[in-house]
Amino acid sequence: MEKNRLEAFSDGVIAIIITIMVLELKVPHGSDFASIKPLLPVFLSYVLSFVYVGIYWNNHHHMLQTAKHVTGGILWANLHLLFWLSLFPFVTGWMGENHFAAMPSALYGLVLLMASIAYFILQKSIIASQGENSLLAKAIGRDCKSKLSSLLYAAGIVAAFYSPILSGFIYASVALMWLIPDSRIERVVGQ
Amino acid sequence: MEKNRLEAFSDGVIAIIITIMVLELKVPHGSDFASIKPLLPVFLSYVLSFVYVGIYWNNHHHMLQTAKHVTGGILWANLHLLFWLSLFPFVTGWMGENHFAAMPSALYGLVLLMASIAYFILQKSIIASQGENSLLAKAIGRDCKSKLSSLLYAAGIVAAFYSPILSGFIYASVALMWLIPDSRIERVVGQ
Amino acid sequence: MEKNRLEAFSDGVIAIIITIMVLELKVPHGSDFASIKPLLPVFLSYVLSFVYVGIYWNNHHHMLQTAKHVTGGILWANLHLLFWLSLFPFVTGWMGENHFAAMPSALYGLVLLMASIAYFILQKSIIASQGENSLLAKAIGRDCKSKLSSLLYAAGIVAAFYSPILSGFIYASVALMWLIPDSRIERVVGQ
Amino acid sequence: MEKNRLEAFSDGVIAIIITIMVLELKVPHGSDFASIKPLLPVFLSYVLSFVYVGIYWNNHHHMLQTAKHVTGGILWANLHLLFWLSLFPFVTGWMGENHFAAMPSALYGLVLLMASIAYFILQKSIIASQGENSLLAKAIGRDCKSKLSSLLYAAGIVAAFYSPILSGFIYASVALMWLIPDSRIERVVGQ
Repeated sequence: MEKNRLEAFSDGVIAIIITIMVLELKVPHGSDFASIKPLLPVFLSYVLSFVYVGIYWNNHHHMLQTAKHVTGGILWANLHLLFWLSLFPFVTGWMGENHFAAMPSALYGLVLLMASIAYFILQKSIIASQGENSLLAKAIGRDCKSKLSSLLYAAGIVAAFYSPILSGFIYASVALMWLIPDSRIERVVGQ
Repeated sequence: MEKNRLEAFSDGVIAIIITIMVLELKVPHGSDFASIKPLLPVFLSYVLSFVYVGIYWNNHHHMLQTAKHVTGGILWANLHLLFWLSLFPFVTGWMGENHFAAMPSALYGLVLLMASIAYFILQKSIIASQGENSLLAKAIGRDCKSKLSSLLYAAGIVAAFYSPILSGFIYASVALMWLIPDSRIERVVGQ
Repeated sequence: MEKNRLEAFSDGVIAIIITIMVLELKVPHGSDFASIKPLLPVFLSYVLSFVYVGIYWNNHHHMLQTAKHVTGGILWANLHLLFWLSLFPFVTGWMGENHFAAMPSALYGLVLLMASIAYFILQKSIIASQGENSLLAKAIGRDCKSKLSSLLYAAGIVAAFYSPILSGFIYASVALMWLIPDSRIERVVGQ
Repeated sequence: MEKNRLEAFSDGVIAIIITIMVLELKVPHGSDFASIKPLLPVFLSYVLSFVYVGIYWNNHHHMLQTAKHVTGGILWANLHLLFWLSLFPFVTGWMGENHFAAMPSALYGLVLLMASIAYFILQKSIIASQGENSLLAKAIGRDCKSKLSSLLYAAGIVAAFYSPILSGFIYASVALMWLIPDSRIERVVGQ
């Protein structure tokens, strides 16, 4: 019961985040192609963030399937993750409107990094609540994919000050890496 | 269980899309009739998009009733559909504010076309997950209505450059065609 | 099952409508009392609309409890009701920003009237789907309260052109009339 | 059943409130650090409000677990609480944009105070509906924490006119006090 409400609330917040990001695509006054051309980078950053939020929703969903009950720690770790995700519309809009300039690209990477750390803390809280023989601990194993992602976000932040395009490529690559469905949890739950 | 959460998330996103579209109806400063008159085309495009999003919600709802479990492919095909639906507020506002000019009307049609293709891909993913004797495959049959719609959207895009009014009529006609409830799935599920 | 999703979707849309109305309370630049004083009428119209949307949610909730299954007609009658409710943020903002001027007050009443008609149509659709011995038909009886409300909204629209204050009082009175909980359905369901 | 829908609606409204607050973080035009520096107080007030809304969601959640059925009084007491919570985005934005000036800080405290009173009324309504031997009455006991919070909000409002920084510290302290999970209800429900 309690878990359902946590999932429903998280789904609500994530659904709103993914949808209000589109409000940064401000309707232009002109009606020709030239008037929407400057929106192209905003659109690109919207696509990237949409994919990221989709990945978080997907993985959050799988992770919570392994949780049996919700402790106070899990609840606040979850709100902490939602906090960083809620900053996506802001950093997406800032990066897009400034055509992937250095500072906005670095801040975008920082929010990605913080969200990945928040996800890691939530994961730890669920594992701690399950005690030994944690299903989730077994499912994620050494969790190399998450560790590699965090490293790449950090690399992207540094790269932003030399070549924002490079950091954009790094963020897009990490997203692609996660688009490949994470079958670990499904496999362990299936057993 | 997993299907419920996919439905709840999709419902959330669609509910937000259908509601934030109204934010494009910007409150005017004057208080007389003249000050809301320019909003009439925005209102008309809002009505059209409201009906379209309502149709998508309705059909999405019926289609998912036939799905038994959710694969990774279905999940991403669903997010892909939500992506195109999330662009409705933008193209609705652009078309309305420019009084159904050529480019905005064409882009509106393009988003309708992409959403219909995304819906088609989602349908294929669900059918693929059901194997032979797919309930959904039986229900949709040759799926002429969807194919005709996609053709008409394409026609509307081309028409926009000659007569935007004509393309507006085409989009409204397709909406009307879908307002007639699609009894195919209900019939097959009922059996 | 199907009814649950209709309720969840309606709840989502109504929750968003009731919350985005507050966005019409634009954050002022100054930090003294004088800078928020002009927001007072916007705040008052927000309170009135919040109560109205709350009443609709409450009554919608009770009415759907009597419904057993959802037909295509009920589904579209429900979307039709949500459409008129979705215009609340716009008319609330317009009426508030213009300090209850004539035209905005009349348009506010028109949206109230259309929503009450849409509610009536939804009620008829549910009764029709229940056939004879409809629980809902028994519960609402002659439905004098709804008919009186519609009359009063119409009176408020006319009054707006002579005395917008009077029409404001009429709208507030109807809201108060509905705040008294409608025990008819509860009584019949309880039996 | 009825309780589920009340919870779902409240979750929806709270999820939207917590997410649209971020829209007050307006995307700046410049792309350097100087252009986001003025947003720092807005960000700080966002963090504070995010934590408060999280606390309300958490406690609301626990409190409703003890409720068995929903009366008309509970329903309206709940909407009354949501009304005050819905003003959070406005007062958060106003306080942040004015760098914690006197009036905005006092108004922020007033909304906190009204929300805590609304929460108290909702609590009373649920206890009243449970009659003697109310589980919730047993769980909250003398409810010193809530009474202390209301007192501190009042102190914060007064302090705002002398030292807004002090009132900011008071509001943050109350939030911290509530972050420590309220184990009273969990304990009593567990028994």
